[in-house]
Amino acid sequence: MQNERKINSAEVIAVGTEMLLGDLVDTNTAWISGRLAALGVGIYRHTTVGDNKERIVAAMREASARSDLVITTGGLGPTSDDLTNECLALLSGREMVEYGEARRHVDEMFARFGRKPTPSNYKQALFPEGTRLIPNPLGTALGALLEVDGTLFATFPGVPSEMKNMFEETLEPLVRARSDGAIVSRTLWFAGIGESALAERVQDLLDAQDPTVAPLAGQGKVRLRITARAATPEQAAQKMEPVEKEILGRLGKYYFGEDDETLEGAVGRLLKKQNAILALAESCTGGLLAKRLTDMPGSSAFFAEGLVTYSNEAKERLLGVPRETLVEHGAVSGPVARAMAEGARKGAGADYGLSVTGVAGPDGGTEEKFVGLVYIGLSDAEETFAEKLDLSAWARSRAAIRERSANRAFDLLRRRLQKHLQEQNKT
Amino acid sequence: MQNERKINSAEVIAVGTEMLLGDLVDTNTAWISGRLAALGVGIYRHTTVGDNKERIVAAMREASARSDLVITTGGLGPTSDDLTNECLALLSGREMVEYGEARRHVDEMFARFGRKPTPSNYKQALFPEGTRLIPNPLGTALGALLEVDGTLFATFPGVPSEMKNMFEETLEPLVRARSDGAIVSRTLWFAGIGESALAERVQDLLDAQDPTVAPLAGQGKVRLRITARAATPEQAAQKMEPVEKEILGRLGKYYFGEDDETLEGAVGRLLKKQNAILALAESCTGGLLAKRLTDMPGSSAFFAEGLVTYSNEAKERLLGVPRETLVEHGAVSGPVARAMAEGARKGAGADYGLSVTGVAGPDGGTEEKFVGLVYIGLSDAEETFAEKLDLSAWARSRAAIRERSANRAFDLLRRRLQKHLQEQNKT
Repeated sequence: MQNERKINSAEVIAVGTEMLLGDLVDTNTAWISGRLAALGVGIYRHTTVGDNKERIVAAMREASARSDLVITTGGLGPTSDDLTNECLALLSGREMVEYGEARRHVDEMFARFGRKPTPSNYKQALFPEGTRLIPNPLGTALGALLEVDGTLFATFPGVPSEMKNMFEETLEPLVRARSDGAIVSRTLWFAGIGESALAERVQDLLDAQDPTVAPLAGQGKVRLRITARAATPEQAAQKMEPVEKEILGRLGKYYFGEDDETLEGAVGRLLKKQNAILALAESCTGGLLAKRLTDMPGSSAFFAEGLVTYSNEAKERLLGVPRETLVEHGAVSGPVARAMAEGARKGAGADYGLSVTGVAGPDGGTEEKFVGLVYIGLSDAEETFAEKLDLSAWARSRAAIRERSANRAFDLLRRRLQKHLQEQNKT
Repeated sequence: MQNERKINSAEVIAVGTEMLLGDLVDTNTAWISGRLAALGVGIYRHTTVGDNKERIVAAMREASARSDLVITTGGLGPTSDDLTNECLALLSGREMVEYGEARRHVDEMFARFGRKPTPSNYKQALFPEGTRLIPNPLGTALGALLEVDGTLFATFPGVPSEMKNMFEETLEPLVRARSDGAIVSRTLWFAGIGESALAERVQDLLDAQDPTVAPLAGQGKVRLRITARAATPEQAAQKMEPVEKEILGRLGKYYFGEDDETLEGAVGRLLKKQNAILALAESCTGGLLAKRLTDMPGSSAFFAEGLVTYSNEAKERLLGVPRETLVEHGAVSGPVARAMAEGARKGAGADYGLSVTGVAGPDGGTEEKFVGLVYIGLSDAEETFAEKLDLSAWARSRAAIRERSANRAFDLLRRRLQKHLQEQNKT
């Protein structure tokens, strides 16, 4: 490619009427942006346009006037409403021509899945003349790389796994070689404190300009993102260090990890450190805790089993919750949460038992057992206890009650594990 | 409001540097767009900008030149990087003034949560002069409604539950009264067929213009969206009818529901119709099936319990899978899938038992038991059988293997339930 200018700024254009109609949530743009930010490329804007030639070309033209790199996702399929590469040809005043390499790729991909391409599939072999192709080992749609008036365009398919692979294999090395300086970000995660209470305690840092510190809250967790810009990633990291130290000095007791860390990730790490095994007993979260733990590769090292006991009968039979306890206190109660946690732990021969029982709603609440009333039980060799949560402020959202219950349960276990670890270290 | 023009077109601007940095996936825009489309409002573009005054104002100005309604989300919080209403003031040339009503709202919300507002919280009482406030019963951030040069601006907070409530209570009635005609969409869902195979069979309909038909695939499911525009929603629905009939005539055997229907939703509906109870036994999906079933309110009517048996020991103890079967065939095998499904069903006294066991990866695969090898077991009073899946094409994504396994398992059960229902109806 001639006339290669530095890549310091980028925009992402998502193409697809399904997104404008609200039929699909675009996760690609966020992923791409995170990757570009890590490479020191500033992102000015995200745009989504429909499958409409004029509007796609207009969005491409506007973005190229602002940014060094324009990445598009979507619109590379075989159907007649897939228009992205054709729009790139219109923008650059080039012809669409068939690439033999791309045609062979279509044939090969179909052969791999034991199917035959149809004539329309060969539309995916057409690209603006002069394009450099982006290989796609996971699908038929190749991408295009084309410099138009000094702005580099890169087109990717909308299928996330394909796009990610192509981005990492082809575009990332290219951007790395052509970007100036670095923006480095680090996210610090906190639980057990609200957003404004947390923000108050670091207000002076939130007002600072470089590094910047920004809070963001959601479902019982709060994060602070520290961002610094410098000539090299190392220098940027160095600039962040004192800020991070200061924050942890003030808020350390709520801190549970950084960047991609999750509460279940922190729990898993601490369990592994202690060679301990966890068993779950879930009622209102219905498998959400187990699902989140097993989202992580390697979770079998610390997770043995989870019992989703939706019915009272299952709570009795599988967890040994005494019928009298269920009758006297009701399924949503401290005594039942304790019995569930203990039953799960003992049944599995595990070190820790964690349970959740509650009213997730939106229906089924009574005055006494209202929507949002949740009990979390925790059992280990030392003791078994329960914590009561009042999530009635989120009574309109079953999903919010379930997510917040899961987060609180994981955070309770995390604190317990951390306490045990500190005690061990002392002895 | 004076000079009220019709609302036929809209844009959504999401405000927040966290989105440009890829820290947060914006789900608000898709939700809003779906609602607007249903009201007959065409959406031309989505834009995301950072917490930067000039760029927010520029995006607002550009959007207002194209559209009758501009909706913003985010940037209404109490911190210094929350700038949306201030930018609306800049755009419209108005002063920011304190609204007594908004100040009282902040006090009331804090009182409800038993906390005290800090001085910065009262920033949320400032709005451009002449603004009509949008009530927010779920949070401190009120929204602003302001007509600027004939374009209606509406600002919403970024917290999805708050934004949705405010949109439904205040903006939707207003847009309904001011929109012309209607766009009506219907989504038809299919499983057990690939996107291009499906597209080939309705190619003539995909090429048609009104109603339009567009395919979209993901994780083992394919949808077709039919969209029609007419003077009234009834007329639009009438236009869609023959197209829907034609599609179902060709693809009926793969069809499982429309619009918001999910595979687990279809399963739940069919179970309820038969007064039948389901029990789950999950290994590699680790609670994902249980989680998806219990995402739905009222799932206790057909779901009794789910056993997440990650360890072999748990498969033996909780599901009665014979040790010899585990040793001879391995945990990822047809015989184990069958024993798990049968064990879950019998243990719970349920009508159906559904199981999944597989290698979700990314590690732990061998030549024989490769990443992506999954068995689904299904057991009812009549028989117990297993189906083998080869998802090795998605070996790089643990999440894709788990989602596809869950979809396939639900689809298998759905077909079985449908078969039983048809047999019942015959007799």
